[in-house]
Amino acid sequence: MLTVRDRLIERLGPSGVLSDPADLTPYVTGPRRFTGACGLVARPATVEETAAVVALAAEHGCPVVPQGGNTGLCDGAIPTDPRAILLNLGRMNRIRAVDPLSYTMTAEAGVILAHAQAAAADADLLFPLSLGAEGSCQIGGNLATNAGGKSVLRYGSARDLVLGLEVVLPDGRIWNGLRSLRKDNTGGDLKQLFLGSEGTLGIITAALLKLQPSVADTACAFAAVADPLAALKLLDRLRRRTGDAISSFELMNAYALEVAVRHLPGAVHPLSEPAAWTVLVELSSSRAGGDLNALLTEALAEALEDGLVTDATLAQNTAQTAAFWRLRDEGATLYWKEGGLLLHDPSVPLARVPDFIERVEREVGRAVPGARIASFGHIGDGNIHVCVSQPKGMDKRAFLALRGLVQDLVYGAAVDLGGSFSAEHGIGRLKMDELVRYRPPVEIALMTTLKRALDPAGLMNPGKVLAAP
Amino acid sequence: MLTVRDRLIERLGPSGVLSDPADLTPYVTGPRRFTGACGLVARPATVEETAAVVALAAEHGCPVVPQGGNTGLCDGAIPTDPRAILLNLGRMNRIRAVDPLSYTMTAEAGVILAHAQAAAADADLLFPLSLGAEGSCQIGGNLATNAGGKSVLRYGSARDLVLGLEVVLPDGRIWNGLRSLRKDNTGGDLKQLFLGSEGTLGIITAALLKLQPSVADTACAFAAVADPLAALKLLDRLRRRTGDAISSFELMNAYALEVAVRHLPGAVHPLSEPAAWTVLVELSSSRAGGDLNALLTEALAEALEDGLVTDATLAQNTAQTAAFWRLRDEGATLYWKEGGLLLHDPSVPLARVPDFIERVEREVGRAVPGARIASFGHIGDGNIHVCVSQPKGMDKRAFLALRGLVQDLVYGAAVDLGGSFSAEHGIGRLKMDELVRYRPPVEIALMTTLKRALDPAGLMNPGKVLAAP
Repeated sequence: MLTVRDRLIERLGPSGVLSDPADLTPYVTGPRRFTGACGLVARPATVEETAAVVALAAEHGCPVVPQGGNTGLCDGAIPTDPRAILLNLGRMNRIRAVDPLSYTMTAEAGVILAHAQAAAADADLLFPLSLGAEGSCQIGGNLATNAGGKSVLRYGSARDLVLGLEVVLPDGRIWNGLRSLRKDNTGGDLKQLFLGSEGTLGIITAALLKLQPSVADTACAFAAVADPLAALKLLDRLRRRTGDAISSFELMNAYALEVAVRHLPGAVHPLSEPAAWTVLVELSSSRAGGDLNALLTEALAEALEDGLVTDATLAQNTAQTAAFWRLRDEGATLYWKEGGLLLHDPSVPLARVPDFIERVEREVGRAVPGARIASFGHIGDGNIHVCVSQPKGMDKRAFLALRGLVQDLVYGAAVDLGGSFSAEHGIGRLKMDELVRYRPPVEIALMTTLKRALDPAGLMNPGKVLAAP
Repeated sequence: MLTVRDRLIERLGPSGVLSDPADLTPYVTGPRRFTGACGLVARPATVEETAAVVALAAEHGCPVVPQGGNTGLCDGAIPTDPRAILLNLGRMNRIRAVDPLSYTMTAEAGVILAHAQAAAADADLLFPLSLGAEGSCQIGGNLATNAGGKSVLRYGSARDLVLGLEVVLPDGRIWNGLRSLRKDNTGGDLKQLFLGSEGTLGIITAALLKLQPSVADTACAFAAVADPLAALKLLDRLRRRTGDAISSFELMNAYALEVAVRHLPGAVHPLSEPAAWTVLVELSSSRAGGDLNALLTEALAEALEDGLVTDATLAQNTAQTAAFWRLRDEGATLYWKEGGLLLHDPSVPLARVPDFIERVEREVGRAVPGARIASFGHIGDGNIHVCVSQPKGMDKRAFLALRGLVQDLVYGAAVDLGGSFSAEHGIGRLKMDELVRYRPPVEIALMTTLKRALDPAGLMNPGKVLAAP
């Protein structure tokens, strides 16, 4: 009798199946160094091959764990069952079409995000999804986790950039929902079932993506503000003054910027002197010659005059813009140089950001005296990445043992204020307990109902998001 | 033993229940004059009362049909079962909160759309959903049908304007999903189940709506173009030239504009002479003093110079802007003055609009020689409302007998070109056959799976969208 492996090789060819334990290791090891297990890795090159893998898995009762670029921070793409088939979509990497007049692109799940961005740029268009891992993460994973990143304020999350999907359902049927329609009111929006559900209801194999006009003008500045409330007021004012041309609006407290300046080779502080709170703002527009620099200069000058902003530096050229963004993006990867580190990904309603930060800094400061807290992130989306560095001189292990305590304070505060314990990184394996703890039972029941209905055998990425019903 | 009616009166008070047949008639009669039937009308004032009605209906096996402003064009809010409880949400009409710093509003289902717009304006913000029925349609209905309208190009459909929902589930439980979060990656987006599913999976009782900065500057023009392809090229160019400031982009063929000018008292043709195709474009921005008029004038002058546009008139003041929009909006309600009329609501991918219009005009012209076709609508969304007027002198009844034939040509063409047979009006009772005919079986199966899982007793708006499984 043929084994699952034999039948997969028969269907995908020998290059489509890996089963040597040494070959499997990189696939079952995530970026957080968590290592799981699987029986084999299937690497289909087409939607039909993907459907065949899923159908075979259903027939044999094998779990199926889809994986894109393996960059997720919640271990959502790492199988833990030695019987699991790890379904790596990396060979489904074609851009099937770019349609400039419709402002759309059809990309397979395995297309690397940076390649999708480049294909849009080749047509003088913009695919606005942008995040740290864009050089290796893949479209399928971006959509399955509803990735966020730095353009959410202007263009929305990954979910908002999709017009249609092609999906392999848990029984191996293919749903071709690749419709390129701006309007389609024919019942509920089925593709939303699969966006953000991390492969627990089906496998995204391709997507019809919305594109935007390419960017022809930008302006970028660092500004010092008194506190997070002033940052929100500045955001409101700039939305109005600039015709909603803001593409990014990032907050950093003094410690966050200090760490970036200290550890990034060649970095200089962007303002005339360190400030308690700074904002990095970028405007962008598809209109050439609209002079966003002048617009931003004028708006910041006015804000300086009436005290909303206390200091500001406008980037004078693209090199300075890149240096500003390096402080934000690369800076955020260097906290480990300060010792033990606890990361969090909460969000709250915009107006509650000041209360949230004040409460978290106070409560964490009381629980761990001397803890150094980087409150920074996408304040325009209410998404503040609270990164807690150990007190100087404290034993690192002793500090890291406080993980649960600190996490409870941070996420408890967020949820109390109407927020979320996972703004952009998802649930995966890592935050399943938080889901059950912080979400109302009726919501868990709804999710369970959907899971049971669409994947009654429970084979799609089991042990992720929701525990088995 | 108490009847359902007695128990409802006990719970909602006498003013919350109507059962006199004369009182029921206006509720069971839709705007298309279709009249259905129901046992009684329940008018709860709170989410708890709504939940009690639904729980009681579940207990007694009564169908529940939710209704807002009763303005839907597909009879989605009209019950047909004499045992049904018509659940009218009109008394749940409070705006619970406006949060200017978060750019959000919490509105109950029964809030009239125009009132929601006004509440946003009071806070110097914009709720961008805008459509013909805005003076009487309600937020709950707008969301349950994922309403479109004239701002979709810029701000998206109703679905895109929602951050959170409060929903009564088919068994009477309340799901409070009123989260005001721009980012929340905790599994799939459950609210999407209820947006656009026309009350077949649960009852939307309140929504947390996204607001925008209010409009501080606009510009509006009529332009003549050679054909629909030129209209699309103009759209692409204007998106780039104006920094994506387009809020509406509407196409009208000669007959559509001719009917408006002929039948609207005091109307004048907006261009120097009638043209085969005209476009109505509006720019808007939250930035005061950005001079959109100058920007639009300059862009249109350039388009005239290189032949993309053959004639153009810029609105000189708000009165002329209103007169332009009257030609589009009121004009579209006057085709009945030309005799028998067949309306359609298809959409296609943007780049396919020229093929679609050419094919429909050719095929309908061949099937009904002398038919006068108004091809007009939201070309920026790919949503062309094909309205077919009878040939002059033809018997009206004979023409209307061709409804099915014409509809098959129009929707067949749309679906062949990757489009939809219902762009913005939904399915309701009216388009259930088309749903099954034009959508792939796997999609109908998915919808059926969801319906069975969430509403196993089949009591939520039965006989709408999907036939009983």
